[in-house]
Amino acid sequence: MSKKNILPEGTRDLILDECIIKRFLERNIDGIFEKWGYKEVITPTLEFYETFNYNSQSLKEEDMYKFFDNRGRILVLRPDMTIPIARVVETKLKDSKIPIKLRYTSNVFRVHASLGGKRNEYTDCGVELIGLEDKKSDLEVLVLALEALKKLELRDFKLEIGNIGFFNGAFKNLDIDQEYKENIAQFIEDKNMKSLEDYLDTLDIKDEYKKFFNKLPWMFGDKKILEDAKNIAFNDDIKENLEYLEELYEQLDELGYGENVTFDLGMVPRLNYYTGIIFRGFGEGVGNTVLRGGRYDSLIQASKKYIPAIGFSIDINSVIPNVNIYNDLNNDENLCKVFYGAENRIEAIKKSEELRREGFIVELLPTENINEIKIIKGGEK
Amino acid sequence: MSKKNILPEGTRDLILDECIIKRFLERNIDGIFEKWGYKEVITPTLEFYETFNYNSQSLKEEDMYKFFDNRGRILVLRPDMTIPIARVVETKLKDSKIPIKLRYTSNVFRVHASLGGKRNEYTDCGVELIGLEDKKSDLEVLVLALEALKKLELRDFKLEIGNIGFFNGAFKNLDIDQEYKENIAQFIEDKNMKSLEDYLDTLDIKDEYKKFFNKLPWMFGDKKILEDAKNIAFNDDIKENLEYLEELYEQLDELGYGENVTFDLGMVPRLNYYTGIIFRGFGEGVGNTVLRGGRYDSLIQASKKYIPAIGFSIDINSVIPNVNIYNDLNNDENLCKVFYGAENRIEAIKKSEELRREGFIVELLPTENINEIKIIKGGEK
Repeated sequence: MSKKNILPEGTRDLILDECIIKRFLERNIDGIFEKWGYKEVITPTLEFYETFNYNSQSLKEEDMYKFFDNRGRILVLRPDMTIPIARVVETKLKDSKIPIKLRYTSNVFRVHASLGGKRNEYTDCGVELIGLEDKKSDLEVLVLALEALKKLELRDFKLEIGNIGFFNGAFKNLDIDQEYKENIAQFIEDKNMKSLEDYLDTLDIKDEYKKFFNKLPWMFGDKKILEDAKNIAFNDDIKENLEYLEELYEQLDELGYGENVTFDLGMVPRLNYYTGIIFRGFGEGVGNTVLRGGRYDSLIQASKKYIPAIGFSIDINSVIPNVNIYNDLNNDENLCKVFYGAENRIEAIKKSEELRREGFIVELLPTENINEIKIIKGGEK
Repeated sequence: MSKKNILPEGTRDLILDECIIKRFLERNIDGIFEKWGYKEVITPTLEFYETFNYNSQSLKEEDMYKFFDNRGRILVLRPDMTIPIARVVETKLKDSKIPIKLRYTSNVFRVHASLGGKRNEYTDCGVELIGLEDKKSDLEVLVLALEALKKLELRDFKLEIGNIGFFNGAFKNLDIDQEYKENIAQFIEDKNMKSLEDYLDTLDIKDEYKKFFNKLPWMFGDKKILEDAKNIAFNDDIKENLEYLEELYEQLDELGYGENVTFDLGMVPRLNYYTGIIFRGFGEGVGNTVLRGGRYDSLIQASKKYIPAIGFSIDINSVIPNVNIYNDLNNDENLCKVFYGAENRIEAIKKSEELRREGFIVELLPTENINEIKIIKGGEK
């Protein structure tokens, strides 16, 4: 008979200040995306598991909330928004004029088996720019990411850029199983240098490859790292990918974002639908990655050909504890309390509507032992 | 290998106009609730099944999406927001000053076994007023419901009010099993007059009861129905509940809502935590019930006593197809397209930011074979 007043691990309620801050951030970020001409889409929370299990271009199976519908088919709580948007573009928007620019503010879900304080429900605010190749749209999306980070009211922030082509370029003339490639990627991504070195020693590949992969986890920092990387770039593919990052940096610097941009050439994220630049945003004092994005040119397919695309999303919840704008948002000058006795109820309701029309937020408060209407406005107290 | 480009039954994407209208409605409704001094709360999509299975005061089990977490406990996708808010009040807000006024805009989930076009995910915008008894808060909440319905841009709307006390009052001196009571309620709620009559004939109860219950499904319409009901009100409890509805009607009429209020004394909803007035909002041309609410004085418990409360929610999605405001929302005077060639990319991005600061929504469009920046503003085309 007793009600269970607890929440599952990884979930929490947002009340009062936290809720106000969350909505403030969502509206701010969504507002910029709108200003840049991105149109909103809303997709369902529930999708078929198969939609997210395409060509193994996806999350690990155990990271998704899965369950059966009443016909025995497997449903998931969407673990990300890029794949649902790819689905929308391939179906409802397949005849739209390119480029297609879409935005979303949606909750996504991930299982965290061993939690350690991790949430399992996130609000992602993001964009996808669909139909333009890298040189025509990477810069726009990077600038938009930087502008969005700026709006999060953090003390400082960085956008860290990588290029999956830099890692993939090394495999151009290397005949090696996908499994080995994935293992190398994992060690690099985790910056697990010792295991990486030991693992590479077990492989029958040339020393210049080993040197290259062993260096990768160290290849992060400001623009100087791009210079250093030239010393280990041993083929044209790697060099081209490096030069492209240099070009992007010059353009971002010219636009005034130089200070906020860093690089990580060892960025090899597990979400392996990325095909070009990949990037992450960090905020001063924020433990989690605030923003994640990248180019994915082989995910969306229409009329039998792949459509290039790039996008990113911001994890709104990760930022909430670091935002210190409560006082600005809680300006109570426009708050108003209307106390009234039982006899004055109708009159009080009428009066409160008048005050709302004047711009006040008005709370009605029935009160014992008074026989009048008493109005207390904001500052008065 | 082929991606599954379909959605589970009962789910759908909202794109373009529909998405714009949905957000417009959400902000409108949330805006009124805020203006009335209701504070927002956000609760998790996932909760323990047990939270919703309290004292059988809940939905049917088969109406909820249920699944196991990794420790074998049953989780649900929240099927409603009133119970999560009761949980928040009993825990995080248990020391708050009464009255507590809360609002929410949240997605809720229901399984529809035989679908018939029904959705399984709804966006509910609602309020809960906690801590005040009926005479102190019913009127405020009814007025707020009427104001919210007004904001939905429907051609016409009605708020239909009932009182569960009217039905329950009949059982005061009637010794009858809960099961029989629930069966009678179900026949009345479904307006299944023939089955109701046959069922009552099988019961060993006085004729005045049978007459009363047989009449109940017919007791709906404008305020005149309250007069008619007096003829079958055979005890003081029933009479009092009737008089209370008359009083509410007079007050609502005085406030100018008379035309929008109707009654249904045979309203006996399945969500059986209601204890006082219950109400539903309907919009002209909208097939589904737009708004649902009522008083629930025995759901929230703190310091070992029950706290009275009343609330309602609006099913935003139900209204979208009936809203014809797209032209107002798609005023393209502030839209602006910036076409640019590869050489002008930086300059175009700078120019677009200037235009955004001037208030324009600016879309950047890289274009082949031009070597300049071309700006087309809203009306120009």
